[in-house]
Amino acid sequence: LDTTRELAEFIAETTYKSLPLAVVHEAKRDIINVMAVSLYSACDPSLQKLLAVFDAEGGHPRASIWGAGRRTTLQNAALANGYTAHLEDYDDTHFPTVVHPTSPTLPAAWAIGEDTGANGKALLTAVALGIEVCCRICNAVYPWHYDAGWHITGTMGVFGGATAAAHIAGLDAAGIVTALGIAGTQAAGVREAFGTMTKPLHAGRAAQAGVMAALLAREGFTAAPTILEGRRGVAEVMSSYRDLSRATADLGSNWEIFNNGLKPYSCGVVSHPSIDAAIALRATPGFAAGAIEDIEAFVHPLVLELMGRAEPQVGLEGKFSVQHTIAVGLVDGAAYPAQFADAKVKDERLTELRRKVTLTVDNAMAEDQCRLRLTMKDGSILEESVEHATGSPQNPITDERLGDKFLTLATPTMGQGQAKAILDRLWHLEDAPAIAGLIL
Amino acid sequence: LDTTRELAEFIAETTYKSLPLAVVHEAKRDIINVMAVSLYSACDPSLQKLLAVFDAEGGHPRASIWGAGRRTTLQNAALANGYTAHLEDYDDTHFPTVVHPTSPTLPAAWAIGEDTGANGKALLTAVALGIEVCCRICNAVYPWHYDAGWHITGTMGVFGGATAAAHIAGLDAAGIVTALGIAGTQAAGVREAFGTMTKPLHAGRAAQAGVMAALLAREGFTAAPTILEGRRGVAEVMSSYRDLSRATADLGSNWEIFNNGLKPYSCGVVSHPSIDAAIALRATPGFAAGAIEDIEAFVHPLVLELMGRAEPQVGLEGKFSVQHTIAVGLVDGAAYPAQFADAKVKDERLTELRRKVTLTVDNAMAEDQCRLRLTMKDGSILEESVEHATGSPQNPITDERLGDKFLTLATPTMGQGQAKAILDRLWHLEDAPAIAGLIL
Repeated sequence: LDTTRELAEFIAETTYKSLPLAVVHEAKRDIINVMAVSLYSACDPSLQKLLAVFDAEGGHPRASIWGAGRRTTLQNAALANGYTAHLEDYDDTHFPTVVHPTSPTLPAAWAIGEDTGANGKALLTAVALGIEVCCRICNAVYPWHYDAGWHITGTMGVFGGATAAAHIAGLDAAGIVTALGIAGTQAAGVREAFGTMTKPLHAGRAAQAGVMAALLAREGFTAAPTILEGRRGVAEVMSSYRDLSRATADLGSNWEIFNNGLKPYSCGVVSHPSIDAAIALRATPGFAAGAIEDIEAFVHPLVLELMGRAEPQVGLEGKFSVQHTIAVGLVDGAAYPAQFADAKVKDERLTELRRKVTLTVDNAMAEDQCRLRLTMKDGSILEESVEHATGSPQNPITDERLGDKFLTLATPTMGQGQAKAILDRLWHLEDAPAIAGLIL
Repeated sequence: LDTTRELAEFIAETTYKSLPLAVVHEAKRDIINVMAVSLYSACDPSLQKLLAVFDAEGGHPRASIWGAGRRTTLQNAALANGYTAHLEDYDDTHFPTVVHPTSPTLPAAWAIGEDTGANGKALLTAVALGIEVCCRICNAVYPWHYDAGWHITGTMGVFGGATAAAHIAGLDAAGIVTALGIAGTQAAGVREAFGTMTKPLHAGRAAQAGVMAALLAREGFTAAPTILEGRRGVAEVMSSYRDLSRATADLGSNWEIFNNGLKPYSCGVVSHPSIDAAIALRATPGFAAGAIEDIEAFVHPLVLELMGRAEPQVGLEGKFSVQHTIAVGLVDGAAYPAQFADAKVKDERLTELRRKVTLTVDNAMAEDQCRLRLTMKDGSILEESVEHATGSPQNPITDERLGDKFLTLATPTMGQGQAKAILDRLWHLEDAPAIAGLIL
């Protein structure tokens, strides 16, 4: 096996023109989605803790921290942007492996690209490659690696960051092998950190490792050329089983980016089919949430296990209450962060609706499937079935809804006018002569 | 088990005054030893690759890169100093686990301590604690963790760095728990990287992780409080077996630092007993290397396996040729880096001596044992047996030889006068009102 070299040669040879247009478009959607989440999270107080450390460090302002209105060093910008990208768990998800590939990838490419004057096409190419390589390596070690307790976005994310950083830095195949070697041996992050700020820090560290790997490789630093397939490489050491052939199978003809889904709703993913159904029912002519007598949800068993929570008390609990997600779907027709504010969870109208929900497990259902039945006070029945939740590879979120997500998340940070302007620029990213200045 | 908290409370409660004097002295020796190696490696061309990236970054000059005559940010200083500390594989070794605890520990404590105006006692205390905690955690996962392919200095080194950084930053027990949590989930480094610049980078990254962990914990960042004992914590995830009780057994009464040895010779450790013997024989009255007819070495089997190399061609091969190490012991009475220069390996006199060496495996011998027999041209026999090589816990290097090592390694970088002045300051470290300015 010569996995590392084969991937590196693929990365080195790929250009914007050689990418299928659909891959470029998907990469653009992943970029818009992560930008949305990062801009939203730029207002999170926890980011200030990172910025306090960075401010004390100083350094030349070479790359933007999105939404924070400031620029810093490449490694610190990558760290901060990877952090905000993953903070709300609202970034993209590669369905076969649960890795979130864009959070460690985009910030690495952006930091180097902004500094070197790279254009939009260069960014799109680097990010498409980073996502692809990251997801393929995850395929090779999933599920064993994840089941052992590794946070796969932190660990294998380094390969997305290194790939994207190395490509946009213009390294040749040998340099990319070295960058993968430097970044790969920094793979880190255990699931014990879930539920703390250290979880999104994993994504930031992976992005930072990618940046440093590309910069050091460019200086002629040396690293193991067999970081993936070597006897003491990451696949062998970090996964009880592995199938490295999956990392290179159909390379360049089959694209993993199409298995990467964008979450429409900012809450536990198993609730997404029921929110789809609730939003569809809300669109029924003459519908009024106040006229509902009873709500029955027929769901996959995991929904009850992970999100059966009738009386959430705070916003974070609301994100893991399927009853709450159905209620906001019926009332607001949305499940953005605003729908999970502490005050929202205490809203009387929503509390009443939540209490009307009966959950029935249907073992025949898939995870992204559900059926929702409303009995109205006048005795009529409204029913909606969802086969594949929005955001799954079989039912991708539309560009229009993605744009709505962007505006909803970015507006509180930068105002609607600015948010619209940036979204427009991102939809035309391939025309941008430089990514520097696209966003601050 | 409450391993993380128990360790954190021990760290928080320990003061300079509460440390046994012998522990303080051993910590000082470990500091002098790593300083020596770092000062020597400050001239290595590979450090310039790191410095080129740092120079492009800029940042407030808050902590020294030892021997490089410059100051930089805390995280970059820790990275560079950890790198040079481990570059020559000439740093301290904890014999039970082969971890090199001081390389990730001292740079972390130094960076924060130099910035905050800490004094010599604070540094000694932080380093003693970092070494202790690091080695104890290694005891809990050794040998399984190392055998799986992890570079234990890179992985578990983060706990040494975090402990030392958190202590010198003055964090309380809760803050130390958080710092251990942030650093622990950054544990990284696979043995595939051995033989490349990325190996010493592991030690630097561990030191950097320790610094960032302490700084973020001080800002109120959150992390898993159970990074060691948790079901998805590092011991469970990174080691097929583990005995966490070893991390806290006899805490404060039994000190692992006494199992930490300092290498007198800058070459493969299995050759050390034969160098001891060669140096002892050289001291025989009237001895002349030119009068040797034949050399027989009776050695542990690993010597032949790892270092049986009669015709090394370059310096690096000389470091793994027991024939060469015996030859330089007999001729120079030393095995410092100078004895492994490329030109030295090609020296005719040494080449001749190497060819006279016969290696005989003695399965009854321990790794740090050997017997060396010289047959002189006049027919006389000189023989020397070594029971425990210098640098092993049973036969520690003397303070005098450690001082000689320091001067030999530091002089090429800074001149003898400066090297002597710094060594003197380090031997009186407990009297230093501030570590800033001790070394540049």
